[in-house]
Amino acid sequence: MHKVDASLNRDLFAENQAIAQGIQDRLHEHDILSFDFMGAIGSGKTLIIEHLIDILPTILPNKRVGVIVGDVMGDDDYQRICKHEVPVVNINTGKECHLDAHLIEHALHKLNLNKIDFLFIENIGNLVCPADFPLGADKRVVTISVTEGDDMVRKHPLIFQLADAIIINKIDLVDIINVDINKIMNDIHHLGEKTVFLTNAQGGKGMKSLLHWLITP
Amino acid sequence: MHKVDASLNRDLFAENQAIAQGIQDRLHEHDILSFDFMGAIGSGKTLIIEHLIDILPTILPNKRVGVIVGDVMGDDDYQRICKHEVPVVNINTGKECHLDAHLIEHALHKLNLNKIDFLFIENIGNLVCPADFPLGADKRVVTISVTEGDDMVRKHPLIFQLADAIIINKIDLVDIINVDINKIMNDIHHLGEKTVFLTNAQGGKGMKSLLHWLITP
Repeated sequence: MHKVDASLNRDLFAENQAIAQGIQDRLHEHDILSFDFMGAIGSGKTLIIEHLIDILPTILPNKRVGVIVGDVMGDDDYQRICKHEVPVVNINTGKECHLDAHLIEHALHKLNLNKIDFLFIENIGNLVCPADFPLGADKRVVTISVTEGDDMVRKHPLIFQLADAIIINKIDLVDIINVDINKIMNDIHHLGEKTVFLTNAQGGKGMKSLLHWLITP
Repeated sequence: MHKVDASLNRDLFAENQAIAQGIQDRLHEHDILSFDFMGAIGSGKTLIIEHLIDILPTILPNKRVGVIVGDVMGDDDYQRICKHEVPVVNINTGKECHLDAHLIEHALHKLNLNKIDFLFIENIGNLVCPADFPLGADKRVVTISVTEGDDMVRKHPLIFQLADAIIINKIDLVDIINVDINKIMNDIHHLGEKTVFLTNAQGGKGMKSLLHWLITP
């Protein structure tokens, strides 16, 4: 959805950036490390977050997680996260295809920041627009699934360029479908030095390495 | 990407609708039937169009196809279509996450409308924004892949509501991954009467039924 903000003539991107900086400052005041999970629809973002919540106590028993989930509509992901008994806020964007810092600002009012050490934000499923709207998170991660084909990175270089790490998920399906993982890796290498995780969230593969990387400030 | 059109204060949606109507009128003057293929990234849109091009001569030997492919960046899909030796125009949107009627209007200048009977338009991979920007096509089709999970329809009802048909692709992977096809069908039924095609573009499954439905005015 495209916003026309004719009356105020504001620069949406600069405004978002300013709010994002404020969010980051505020989270840091509370010693919270935050992560923005971007990625296409169905790439496995929710399941990855669910796994990370479950294994965190085995690595850092005293640390607590909070989650913000974004979806165009509905509360499917919210309900899934709720089952893990962590504080979670659901954002429905209605017609918007990405979260923005202002939406996160509102969601933070619903979380007790004194009782959270890590904040997971699940962005809307989209490889285009979330790139332009940083949310103030310390690390931005983009997830793709091998089932999306091996041309995803070259078709959407910006979001991969901006991400701190790239998760290539559903890796166990590579042999079943007609996808060349080397093509994806090659496209990633052209973007510069990137941290890449090969995962299969369905079976939990790669989740521990990912969590270790995330929680290292 | 979000456009701020502060100087002219135009209604982007109404403007798009007017151009789309003009496109449809123009295509009809040339007896061209046109199709807008929407769907998420990696759902299989390009491969489906490739199959349809290949099997059309077996059904209607004298009919000719033209294609417009939209991508944020690059010409991967364009190159794939070129191999089928049909006229094709590549649209790169840069940062936009959908095609709009104005882009199609420009692309049509590069096609000889007297030598085309069917126009296939491949939209940008996105289940949100393309819904709001009709392109003047006679039929709008939305493709999802079972690998995206079974909650795609309920999370993005608008695009499915607006589509004339829904393609559920990569159906052969249902048994391998943890997806309930009945959940998807149930969500579709809640939207009203919809034409649904279960396909596996990789093996060509369901392509003939789909083509028959498309070319029936």
